[in-house]
Amino acid sequence: MSYFKENIENLSGYTPGFQPTDEDVVKVNTNENPYPPSPKVAQLLASFDVNRLRRYPAPLGDSFRVAAAKLNGLLPENIMCTNGGDDLLTIVLRSFCCGTRSLVYPAPTYSLYEVLAKIQNCPVVEIPWKDGYCLPKQELLDAGGALTIVCNPNAPSGSFIDPEEISELASLLEGKSVLLVDEAYADFAEGNCAGLVNKHENLIILRSMSKGYSLAGLRFGYAIACRELIDGLLKVKDSYNVDALAIAIATEAIQDQAYFKRNVELVKEQRTRVTKELESLGFRVGTSNANFVLAQTLSSDASDVFEKLKEKQVFVRYFPYDGLRDKLRITIGTPSENDKLIEALKEILSS
Amino acid sequence: MSYFKENIENLSGYTPGFQPTDEDVVKVNTNENPYPPSPKVAQLLASFDVNRLRRYPAPLGDSFRVAAAKLNGLLPENIMCTNGGDDLLTIVLRSFCCGTRSLVYPAPTYSLYEVLAKIQNCPVVEIPWKDGYCLPKQELLDAGGALTIVCNPNAPSGSFIDPEEISELASLLEGKSVLLVDEAYADFAEGNCAGLVNKHENLIILRSMSKGYSLAGLRFGYAIACRELIDGLLKVKDSYNVDALAIAIATEAIQDQAYFKRNVELVKEQRTRVTKELESLGFRVGTSNANFVLAQTLSSDASDVFEKLKEKQVFVRYFPYDGLRDKLRITIGTPSENDKLIEALKEILSS
Repeated sequence: MSYFKENIENLSGYTPGFQPTDEDVVKVNTNENPYPPSPKVAQLLASFDVNRLRRYPAPLGDSFRVAAAKLNGLLPENIMCTNGGDDLLTIVLRSFCCGTRSLVYPAPTYSLYEVLAKIQNCPVVEIPWKDGYCLPKQELLDAGGALTIVCNPNAPSGSFIDPEEISELASLLEGKSVLLVDEAYADFAEGNCAGLVNKHENLIILRSMSKGYSLAGLRFGYAIACRELIDGLLKVKDSYNVDALAIAIATEAIQDQAYFKRNVELVKEQRTRVTKELESLGFRVGTSNANFVLAQTLSSDASDVFEKLKEKQVFVRYFPYDGLRDKLRITIGTPSENDKLIEALKEILSS
Repeated sequence: MSYFKENIENLSGYTPGFQPTDEDVVKVNTNENPYPPSPKVAQLLASFDVNRLRRYPAPLGDSFRVAAAKLNGLLPENIMCTNGGDDLLTIVLRSFCCGTRSLVYPAPTYSLYEVLAKIQNCPVVEIPWKDGYCLPKQELLDAGGALTIVCNPNAPSGSFIDPEEISELASLLEGKSVLLVDEAYADFAEGNCAGLVNKHENLIILRSMSKGYSLAGLRFGYAIACRELIDGLLKVKDSYNVDALAIAIATEAIQDQAYFKRNVELVKEQRTRVTKELESLGFRVGTSNANFVLAQTLSSDASDVFEKLKEKQVFVRYFPYDGLRDKLRITIGTPSENDKLIEALKEILSS
């Protein structure tokens, strides 16, 4: 017999991207930043009094709340710290969804949403993106979810919906559904929705320190929302969901905006370059607002190119899902990593 | 209107113990270890390459898994790392409980269990401890939970159930209920249940690095269970629930058993001393197997002593719940902190 609930027993867990332990490979498979975190992080670690770890951390991560609020022109009460963006996704599923309250999102998108819905045992309605990854607002409304998630920029497409359109969707959903905008990749985008949270009582923004701030290993994200929503989410989160060291590091990193902006610009420059080179190799590459591109191969199945890249120690991401089997998601690396990627692809395609 | 589910809207969240920011107060309210973490933790921080934070952490925290398995005479497959013990509690509630599958535990105990059950919207059956905090095995079985939790040593009583009795309960529950033994305080106890996980297919042990290892600020705990249960729980946990720095620190700390054992002995010596002194002041103090004692005052309401201690910058824990209103939970501090506690109590009682 199984002791687990049936939905858990039947679940295939989320499969994270492969994490090679070898440092010398070209790892462009999990959308990590190719540059190290702010030098202030190293300084902090060198001077951190470990005796502070003896005591419980600040339950709300106050120093980070203040810094993130300031950056976004909001109040600390509009911020909730989370153990990575995934922690926030788990918290919102538990807060708003159940057997009679569904999750709705445009697809294809981040595959974790569906896994979390299965764990929560709530219905899922996937609405296909309109041509060219446009927002299917009316269809999302008609689906009647208790929670609607829009990943923006979207993964794995890198496509971007203008905040004005997100605002229209939030208005349509008002009184009916919470709208979570997953802005894990917003650091690399033309805009974001932080300015909308005081306009929409049903809007939650997800942010991550993993991408733009090079802190995927730290697990730190945050929610931005009106105070009423934050207050409710705080009841559901674990009392001490972020640790004292992570709070201190994330606070240092988010305050070093000069370093952050320089790295983001470097990634965006290389995104333009990689896009062009992939196109010249025959790939179809959509415009990306993230730190990765989705490259459509000429064949109907990209797994062959994926495997051959792996043999050359170049790790990209392949999703064996509908609409994605002919594509590879490729994270933007350093110029030299991108050189190696393009070189490897040239060899594979000419052989 | 509220966007939250009704059970969340109606919830009073868990109230963590007060965290004074002043370092000079006597803080014996949240069962933190009075001694700093292993010196190896400081060494690790000083030499940690922050560039590692750029990449996602090992999803399973492999180095810690190996170290914890070795310590407990088990295999890495028997271990799951969690973001504090609370993360594991949340995961098991989500794995085993729902509207038709209840949570059962002997009470009074850690008040978070009830809060998590309310979030999960599952029924709760509280079974009173038998006289003198004995295990009500038959009553727990009859309650028919999908999940049964026994906190051992129990909080806030500090009482301890012999592992043989836990084993009998696990046998009774086999095929019916998972038994989680919350061993957050086992570092200070006469025994523990780790040796039982290969005997019972329905047994999960919770461990924490917060107490014996002085790492409450780090948020690190782990589950011990048979491989089948661990495999199921891994599907429910967040993909990267523990961060790279926390994995490295917790691994260093758990490997420094000499330092750990010395600190535990110091705390146990002071526990004996504090118990005696409290008794000589007229408190009734049960035998504790944890790093705190539960002291029953002469009056029916201990909140008065609690408040007066606070005025003297001595912070203990008071629970306004049935069976606990006449008691104070007092964490064992350093000898000098315990001096100040006893001194303050003498002044209060003689005034």
